[in-house]
Amino acid sequence: MALTSIAQACDLVIFGAKGDLARRKLLPSLYRLEKAGSLHPKTRIIGVGRANWDVKTYTQVVREALETFMKEGIDDKSWRSLSARLDFCNLDVNEMTHFSRLGEKLDQQARVTVNYFAMPPNTFEAICRGLGKTGLNSEPNRIVMEKPLGTDLSSSREINNQVAKYFNESQVYRIDHYLGKETVLNLLALRFANSIFVSNWDNRTIDHVQITVAEEVGIEGRWGYFDKAGQMRDMIQSHLLQILTMMAMSPPSDLSTDRIRDEKVKVLRSLRLIDFTNVRDTTVRGQYTGGFVQGKKVPGYLEEEGANKNSRTETFVSVRVDIDNWRWAGVPFYLRTGKRLPTKCSEVVVYFKNPVLNLFLDSYQQLPQNKLTIRLQPREGMDIQILNKVPGLDHKHRLQTTKLDLSFNKTFHQEHLADAYERLLLESMRGIQALFVRRDEVEEAWKWIDSIMEAWKAGNDSPKPYQAGTWGPLSSIAMMTRDRRSWNKFE
Amino acid sequence: MALTSIAQACDLVIFGAKGDLARRKLLPSLYRLEKAGSLHPKTRIIGVGRANWDVKTYTQVVREALETFMKEGIDDKSWRSLSARLDFCNLDVNEMTHFSRLGEKLDQQARVTVNYFAMPPNTFEAICRGLGKTGLNSEPNRIVMEKPLGTDLSSSREINNQVAKYFNESQVYRIDHYLGKETVLNLLALRFANSIFVSNWDNRTIDHVQITVAEEVGIEGRWGYFDKAGQMRDMIQSHLLQILTMMAMSPPSDLSTDRIRDEKVKVLRSLRLIDFTNVRDTTVRGQYTGGFVQGKKVPGYLEEEGANKNSRTETFVSVRVDIDNWRWAGVPFYLRTGKRLPTKCSEVVVYFKNPVLNLFLDSYQQLPQNKLTIRLQPREGMDIQILNKVPGLDHKHRLQTTKLDLSFNKTFHQEHLADAYERLLLESMRGIQALFVRRDEVEEAWKWIDSIMEAWKAGNDSPKPYQAGTWGPLSSIAMMTRDRRSWNKFE
Repeated sequence: MALTSIAQACDLVIFGAKGDLARRKLLPSLYRLEKAGSLHPKTRIIGVGRANWDVKTYTQVVREALETFMKEGIDDKSWRSLSARLDFCNLDVNEMTHFSRLGEKLDQQARVTVNYFAMPPNTFEAICRGLGKTGLNSEPNRIVMEKPLGTDLSSSREINNQVAKYFNESQVYRIDHYLGKETVLNLLALRFANSIFVSNWDNRTIDHVQITVAEEVGIEGRWGYFDKAGQMRDMIQSHLLQILTMMAMSPPSDLSTDRIRDEKVKVLRSLRLIDFTNVRDTTVRGQYTGGFVQGKKVPGYLEEEGANKNSRTETFVSVRVDIDNWRWAGVPFYLRTGKRLPTKCSEVVVYFKNPVLNLFLDSYQQLPQNKLTIRLQPREGMDIQILNKVPGLDHKHRLQTTKLDLSFNKTFHQEHLADAYERLLLESMRGIQALFVRRDEVEEAWKWIDSIMEAWKAGNDSPKPYQAGTWGPLSSIAMMTRDRRSWNKFE
Repeated sequence: MALTSIAQACDLVIFGAKGDLARRKLLPSLYRLEKAGSLHPKTRIIGVGRANWDVKTYTQVVREALETFMKEGIDDKSWRSLSARLDFCNLDVNEMTHFSRLGEKLDQQARVTVNYFAMPPNTFEAICRGLGKTGLNSEPNRIVMEKPLGTDLSSSREINNQVAKYFNESQVYRIDHYLGKETVLNLLALRFANSIFVSNWDNRTIDHVQITVAEEVGIEGRWGYFDKAGQMRDMIQSHLLQILTMMAMSPPSDLSTDRIRDEKVKVLRSLRLIDFTNVRDTTVRGQYTGGFVQGKKVPGYLEEEGANKNSRTETFVSVRVDIDNWRWAGVPFYLRTGKRLPTKCSEVVVYFKNPVLNLFLDSYQQLPQNKLTIRLQPREGMDIQILNKVPGLDHKHRLQTTKLDLSFNKTFHQEHLADAYERLLLESMRGIQALFVRRDEVEEAWKWIDSIMEAWKAGNDSPKPYQAGTWGPLSSIAMMTRDRRSWNKFE
């Protein structure tokens, strides 16, 4: 591995060392980066929390987390080097005086401090202040923040303002883990390295685009947390809009961090506002009722543990998004996401326009459209649906849709596609911000989301019920039917 | 099978009943059409020749041909119905009086007579005259002719004129069996039913096109015949130019016979003339020497049985074809065909232009081009080569070419793709001329070929030697190199 692809020497500080995110995602990712040789030899990992642990105890906690949350076995060599990097700092983020303890553990001359906030956003202000007052906030030190960053534009601004008091935007790494996915990153290569797509990527050739992020799971014991957010804030504001911007952005002048983010934010600024005038035509929100998922009986949202029976929080959203710019005028992007859908999968489907003339009327009254499907998960890959002649002696030109297929796992012969967190942790330790969300992106996204949320609130409707294990309320299908289109069927 | 897809009731008259073409191709194809139920119940098959056979003898000849030239077994039911259709007519085509014997065997009220000329072209005039004088030449009767139709424009015109004295163009079915191939026909569907190709099919997006028809075999005991023709007349004039026109034609206003042929002939008329001024830059001719094909030692062209040691006949041709029309200006079509090449295969490769800007300079100084490969044989199908990101944590945008693949046999789950002759026989019995070559096509092709042949003759060069089992003379590679391109590698 070339030197440039190795991370810098870092003190990686994990606030929330005991938490779910750290144990499930960050520690396994760090182990894999260690195993791949991607961590700088001098990098250290410092868990931070209120527990009164010493290094030995923390090392045990880390080992246990790896054993619990990794499928693969732990090899001794990697564990030895990883565990040698570990340290723990007892620190209550609300106690300013505690931060000097952290300072003592760092070597600011030799290493960059990367502070990973694996804690709720209401602690961010205190952490930033603590780091600031202790002089740990200067360049090139960084902070990495997980969503949710607020629940609307104003709370998001508040968090960003608090952070901005102590850190420049160039130090702030906002994670949307969809931006770490191999298949999402591949969109850049797909769109800008292939002329057959470059020349087919606008309203002259594309009819519409569908983005689906379907979850099979329900609330998973987080009812209280989820109910305050809902699917719109939790999924659309972040992941689906990120995918949308990667699909819709114009070519950047180069692939550097801010040139990419400039183009993404331009897309967000072009989203047509949805408010009380058009919210009923362009959005559907649903809430699941009891049903069956993969043959298993599951309760409805209001019957889950801890549920408030009067909740109107949506567990399903579909939206027709119009992008009012020259490239996409007239090409709707349909987003759809929900819990307790029939299967777990994320994909983008590009529907191309039909040829201007149908020469095959004797075979098809209306030609099926060419489709490019980009499978983000599972079975990462892509396929192109085209029309071919059905082999045979028929004198009519009978046609049939067929697929040219490319599966990443098969093609690249890799068992393990790197996890999004591996990539994003590594990028934060490399100091490359391209895969992190810039402040103006977050805020533009909230501005657009807020308007929908307000229109929903003003409309005073309840979410439409849908049975668990189905593709959402009927009105989601009806929304497409009105546009003479239909949702892609999963295979 | 719908009634419309069944052929009309015909008297199918095969001139040259004993010949190679009849026995190898026509009779097995008729058997398969019979088996598929594609022949009209009243259709009869009448062998014509100088032999003094009765029906019984001819039936034995047919049976023997099927057993010799078909891989599959003969089923009793199909054989019973096929053999019941057979008749034989003793006839010397040079004896005008004999044709009345044929007339007696036909039922011109009940059936269309389809005369298949499976004999050398120097007999066509006599046959046509015989049919004419006997009153067997009126609409809707037809004649089916096999190439070679002459050896240059003037001899081709002569044949066509002789035929035209007795038959209208609408009665004449000129076979180029490449037009019967499933994958060649699929070009129509591919090009005109798929918007991703429709919008990518001209000089704005295509860099160049390569058409290769490679033969593994040598002369196969036909030295004398082949030496008079050569690869240019035998293959380029017919098959390769037909594929070229199918690839390059503009969309016809509909898929009817003459609207398709109108567009094809327009392409032929737009071929840039090759003469003494440019023949050395745009053509390469080769002649194979001894070598190895698939591990087997084989003799050179001049060492084959019956060879004239001074022959300058080419067994290999490559040509850069420029099409001087608005769609293709600046997009060369490279044709390549030869005997004793490393493998038997026919394919078309469309190279797309690169994106106007290379955003991936850190990974590729020059991006590999997108390629659409249409495999005519073997392994009929197509694939698209595109660029994807190499999965992994590398911070550079490393790219890799990958293929989206579509194999017809796999996709359509068919063991047997219909043979070209099955299709073309059936089409002639249906009375649909779309897959047959119109007179003006043949003559435009000859006009263009003649100019090259004359330039070669005037240049007084010998063909360049190439070792059997290689891809032709080095100058064929050099021709591409001069254009900063290279021949597609077969896999």
